[in-house]
Amino acid sequence: MAHRSNHYDVTQWPHGDAAHDIGAVINDILRDVKERQRTTDVEGGGRPGAVVYIPPGDYRLRTQVVIDISFLRIEGAGHGFTSSSIRFNVPEAEWADLHELWPGGSRVMVDLAGVDAGDEASGAAFLVRRKGSPRISSVEFSGFCIDGLHFTAPGPDDNAENSYVNGKTGIYVEDANDSFRVNEMGFVYLENALTIYHADALSIHDNFIAECGSCVELRGWGQASKITDNLIGAGFAGHSIYAENHGGLLITANNVFPRGASSVHLHGVTRSSVTNNRLHSFYPGMVVLSAGSSENLVASNHFLRDHEPWTPFLGVEGRHDDAFGLVNVHGDGNSIIGNHFSEVVAASRVRPAGTPPVIVRVTAGTGNRISDNHVVASDVDPAAQDSAFEAQVEALLSTADARPLPVTTVRIDAGADGNTVLDSGTEGEVDADLERNAVRFTPAIRPSHTTTAAQKMVRT
Amino acid sequence: MAHRSNHYDVTQWPHGDAAHDIGAVINDILRDVKERQRTTDVEGGGRPGAVVYIPPGDYRLRTQVVIDISFLRIEGAGHGFTSSSIRFNVPEAEWADLHELWPGGSRVMVDLAGVDAGDEASGAAFLVRRKGSPRISSVEFSGFCIDGLHFTAPGPDDNAENSYVNGKTGIYVEDANDSFRVNEMGFVYLENALTIYHADALSIHDNFIAECGSCVELRGWGQASKITDNLIGAGFAGHSIYAENHGGLLITANNVFPRGASSVHLHGVTRSSVTNNRLHSFYPGMVVLSAGSSENLVASNHFLRDHEPWTPFLGVEGRHDDAFGLVNVHGDGNSIIGNHFSEVVAASRVRPAGTPPVIVRVTAGTGNRISDNHVVASDVDPAAQDSAFEAQVEALLSTADARPLPVTTVRIDAGADGNTVLDSGTEGEVDADLERNAVRFTPAIRPSHTTTAAQKMVRT
Amino acid sequence: MAHRSNHYDVTQWPHGDAAHDIGAVINDILRDVKERQRTTDVEGGGRPGAVVYIPPGDYRLRTQVVIDISFLRIEGAGHGFTSSSIRFNVPEAEWADLHELWPGGSRVMVDLAGVDAGDEASGAAFLVRRKGSPRISSVEFSGFCIDGLHFTAPGPDDNAENSYVNGKTGIYVEDANDSFRVNEMGFVYLENALTIYHADALSIHDNFIAECGSCVELRGWGQASKITDNLIGAGFAGHSIYAENHGGLLITANNVFPRGASSVHLHGVTRSSVTNNRLHSFYPGMVVLSAGSSENLVASNHFLRDHEPWTPFLGVEGRHDDAFGLVNVHGDGNSIIGNHFSEVVAASRVRPAGTPPVIVRVTAGTGNRISDNHVVASDVDPAAQDSAFEAQVEALLSTADARPLPVTTVRIDAGADGNTVLDSGTEGEVDADLERNAVRFTPAIRPSHTTTAAQKMVRT
Repeated sequence: MAHRSNHYDVTQWPHGDAAHDIGAVINDILRDVKERQRTTDVEGGGRPGAVVYIPPGDYRLRTQVVIDISFLRIEGAGHGFTSSSIRFNVPEAEWADLHELWPGGSRVMVDLAGVDAGDEASGAAFLVRRKGSPRISSVEFSGFCIDGLHFTAPGPDDNAENSYVNGKTGIYVEDANDSFRVNEMGFVYLENALTIYHADALSIHDNFIAECGSCVELRGWGQASKITDNLIGAGFAGHSIYAENHGGLLITANNVFPRGASSVHLHGVTRSSVTNNRLHSFYPGMVVLSAGSSENLVASNHFLRDHEPWTPFLGVEGRHDDAFGLVNVHGDGNSIIGNHFSEVVAASRVRPAGTPPVIVRVTAGTGNRISDNHVVASDVDPAAQDSAFEAQVEALLSTADARPLPVTTVRIDAGADGNTVLDSGTEGEVDADLERNAVRFTPAIRPSHTTTAAQKMVRT
Repeated sequence: MAHRSNHYDVTQWPHGDAAHDIGAVINDILRDVKERQRTTDVEGGGRPGAVVYIPPGDYRLRTQVVIDISFLRIEGAGHGFTSSSIRFNVPEAEWADLHELWPGGSRVMVDLAGVDAGDEASGAAFLVRRKGSPRISSVEFSGFCIDGLHFTAPGPDDNAENSYVNGKTGIYVEDANDSFRVNEMGFVYLENALTIYHADALSIHDNFIAECGSCVELRGWGQASKITDNLIGAGFAGHSIYAENHGGLLITANNVFPRGASSVHLHGVTRSSVTNNRLHSFYPGMVVLSAGSSENLVASNHFLRDHEPWTPFLGVEGRHDDAFGLVNVHGDGNSIIGNHFSEVVAASRVRPAGTPPVIVRVTAGTGNRISDNHVVASDVDPAAQDSAFEAQVEALLSTADARPLPVTTVRIDAGADGNTVLDSGTEGEVDADLERNAVRFTPAIRPSHTTTAAQKMVRT
Repeated sequence: MAHRSNHYDVTQWPHGDAAHDIGAVINDILRDVKERQRTTDVEGGGRPGAVVYIPPGDYRLRTQVVIDISFLRIEGAGHGFTSSSIRFNVPEAEWADLHELWPGGSRVMVDLAGVDAGDEASGAAFLVRRKGSPRISSVEFSGFCIDGLHFTAPGPDDNAENSYVNGKTGIYVEDANDSFRVNEMGFVYLENALTIYHADALSIHDNFIAECGSCVELRGWGQASKITDNLIGAGFAGHSIYAENHGGLLITANNVFPRGASSVHLHGVTRSSVTNNRLHSFYPGMVVLSAGSSENLVASNHFLRDHEPWTPFLGVEGRHDDAFGLVNVHGDGNSIIGNHFSEVVAASRVRPAGTPPVIVRVTAGTGNRISDNHVVASDVDPAAQDSAFEAQVEALLSTADARPLPVTTVRIDAGADGNTVLDSGTEGEVDADLERNAVRFTPAIRPSHTTTAAQKMVRT
């Protein structure tokens, strides 16, 4: 592990003190790598990069890390998540009894001074910035925790720690990049966990990204990337997964929990997949295909929309009413196939009042295909709880005491035509111009034989 | 790697001998971690946890490891699976010619004394136990092998090693937990590989869990977890994947091979996904949704049910007859969409005799949707072989010499109504009260034009 | 990290020089492992194997590594991909301005002498070869880069570096094997990245395999394996993912980009899954089920076929014309369910000229089910660009300026009968003998109301 090799340990680097400022230490290591790898071509090699190891520990980051070399892996031994959100809503009198107060693992504590509110990059713990050719490649972040420590703006329940706002970003990639990896990381209490511009063949895999304002944002444009097998949940105003102007993006096998304003938002995205995810939200607008997002596949996902059950966040509302749809499509040629939707809300809280909530809505576009989707809608009396975990599990498991809730399973707006809706709602549930779209209704069960809620299963 | 840091190596710990008792060594390391991390709040940190590294080697575990700290990662460098099941059915005379006899990698050999048959926790190699708040978080198990060594009860072919019974559990998590990870592990010859109570945001990913009585059991209740991308196969009496009272569980991208009594069993589970898995079983009851499991999505899975081909286990039967269904549903509002089913059995062995096997059966519940499923059923003459590998591959690949087998693709029991069945069987294949359920039959091919088995493809 | 333990570091091994010949060093380490692990049974263990660590660096491999022990993990700290393809098409005058010239990370540079063109194994950097019992098990390759350095045959644009031919293979597994893993690896500029015979319970997960002639080939026969969550793209004449005579193979969550001759080719494969992948190709024949491949599930995939946009490869054509289909099936009982197809080509380049391209074609077989597939076909004017990245993204994102393209969504050849086609094309789009197959057409939108291209969304 000598620093003559390309394997560095932040705790053994002779310059600086990683506990006091891991940012300064990593920057000094990068300086050393560049000093030792001066030439681009030494017998067919020359710039293999390095690995920087962060053992478990608490490391304050007072200096932004700036990465401008390819083939760098920064690696820890623990994603270190614990719920800061729960902790910051525990009365201070009880803190003495807590086993831990803070996240852990290989934990980078983002404590930057001089963050410029108008310059997102300035608040990033890790900034990747390099112009020229080739694009910076194969930078990897693996197995450590980036903790923003505190939220600082006015927030729900009069608690700034519930605001999801602090101007901090975990990783900010500013320039075009290739074959990056973010694996097994933990992100917590950052306003933006991961913001990446101009990605190609990016892999965001098997991370824990929760209690951040926004979690994954792919900006600018990009292609052929994947966001797979992550546990993700953003704040009430942010994005869990967002991409703009991407093609060939694969979003699959993610478990996206509340409370993001959306679960997956694709803006001007084409020929991409949102398949096989488990999506849970407290608001409409779970999957949004906006700005002409076209020829995307949204299939085999499980959607659950219900109400916030945890006391500190009661009263926070989403930005859209229930007419917006759990899926909202503005674009052409998309496929919405074989999804399950559970809409579990209090009828009295549906907005606009007196109208059925919409599940899939096409606001504009042609050639969209919506087929074989199954909607289960229930009118419930939501209960609130002080314990986040128990409240959530209880809400998730309660199906027996629900009443059927009328819904519009599919709405095709007047301006949209040439769309096809198959087996995604009975005649009373699909709202579309049948002259301008092709619709085959789901066969209805004869009303006289429909089981009432009282006859439903009770878990045993 | 000094033990002053939070990175420990079991082979370099000065107290105890990891080869003789790795359990005692790890417990002593945990004692050291706790002694050094006494305070919950030291400049915004205090308890970051540790990583315990297990290099490749054989390590006997004579003392149970008891984990009560968050942010602990126990990490090896090899899942170390080899088939003990095959080895224990090799005649002893041939052992001298074998390249290896035992599993390997970073191998923990579970050799606990004093296991109490009535107390599952007592037989666990790793016991996670902590009361109070917060829930224990971010404990990670990664990249090592837990080997139960031998099975010990009477078993098939008069061989105790075929019994899947020895009272041992690999990892047993007793108390509520958050953001745990089990990745890249190997589990072999344990009666229970992984038993976890009260999980939240758990990830069980990319493991090799085979030749264990039961593989993954999520008990009590829990939410928002994922079981993804694993190779899994339980014993004939156990569970490959089992969960109870979970919500928002995502089970995807797993390759679940025989011989578990079930492939995926959800008991009182709601709003969860079983999607995109490859499932193979020797018995009916492959996916069981029991006890009012509701609003789950079972989609895009490949089901194969055939007969045990390997000599030592011939004659072992499942607990259900063929009327039980490959999928059995007791609950409301579930979606069974777009699955492929291959039923490859000897007609003479179907039970009850003379009845067609059932593929999807709803025993109770309303609002279930069964659509666009494809069933291929064949009557074959199963052959047995002494080689497990060749027997299995041969059985898997043989499709040419089969005769069509009549099946009931969907049965809705008399007590269940309000369900919808679309394109999941022709008129003769769906057994449901058409007055009480909505059914659209798959269009039939005119019988005179059906290809006979003799005309089918032959692989070249 | 002493070499007395089972943890080795190639840079610290006292014999040989890893930078000059990492192959010789690893072989010497394997000799040491075998010398120390002589006995198969030492107190219930004896041959746990070892881990060989390759820190980031450039390591030339002049000697083939031959692996014949189980439980070996070879592990690096960086997959090290950068695009050699782009670099080798940059004018030499610009090289001085490039940040890097070569791939990096833990980089093995394959520089074998004496490769025998008639003996694929001779050109392998890593050769796994062991006869006898048990099958070699749990060999793992993780986190390093295998770089073939140069292609050497005549290639497009008169550049040998565009030929994808050099006789080199990254990893070649010759004998039956069990529970192998290939994870987080990078492969670049190899004629064959990964060739594995007779695999059981193999996992190929989360790798970056690009700019290789062929990427993953599973040959001989095998079972119960998975190819998941990879970024993969082969050369114009090769396979991205190929398997023959496999059963129970799970291919999911892969992002397969061009330019492979096929994306997924299954030959004599049964009861396997190709689900939930994102597939992109420049040629027909994206998913090929050949030689009686039967009872496979192809579901929830996103298919995009368009034209090569990058200048150096313009003019390279696939081996099949557009009548071949994007999916081509020769076999029985397969399920093609819920896929999205985007066919984006210049009508003038469709072959045979004047005929509509075919999307799904069944050339022979019975009992196949093709249901709920959505095809979007566009006639475009493809533009070429000098920048690979920008050309690809631009092509991916452009949907607005397209004209509708007539297609045959499903063709069942005259020799194939007993197949079922549901909701996968309107009456004019499905070409099948309706007497011999069961077909339900997708309901058509009344032509007078179909939106013209000019009315389509424009991204904003």
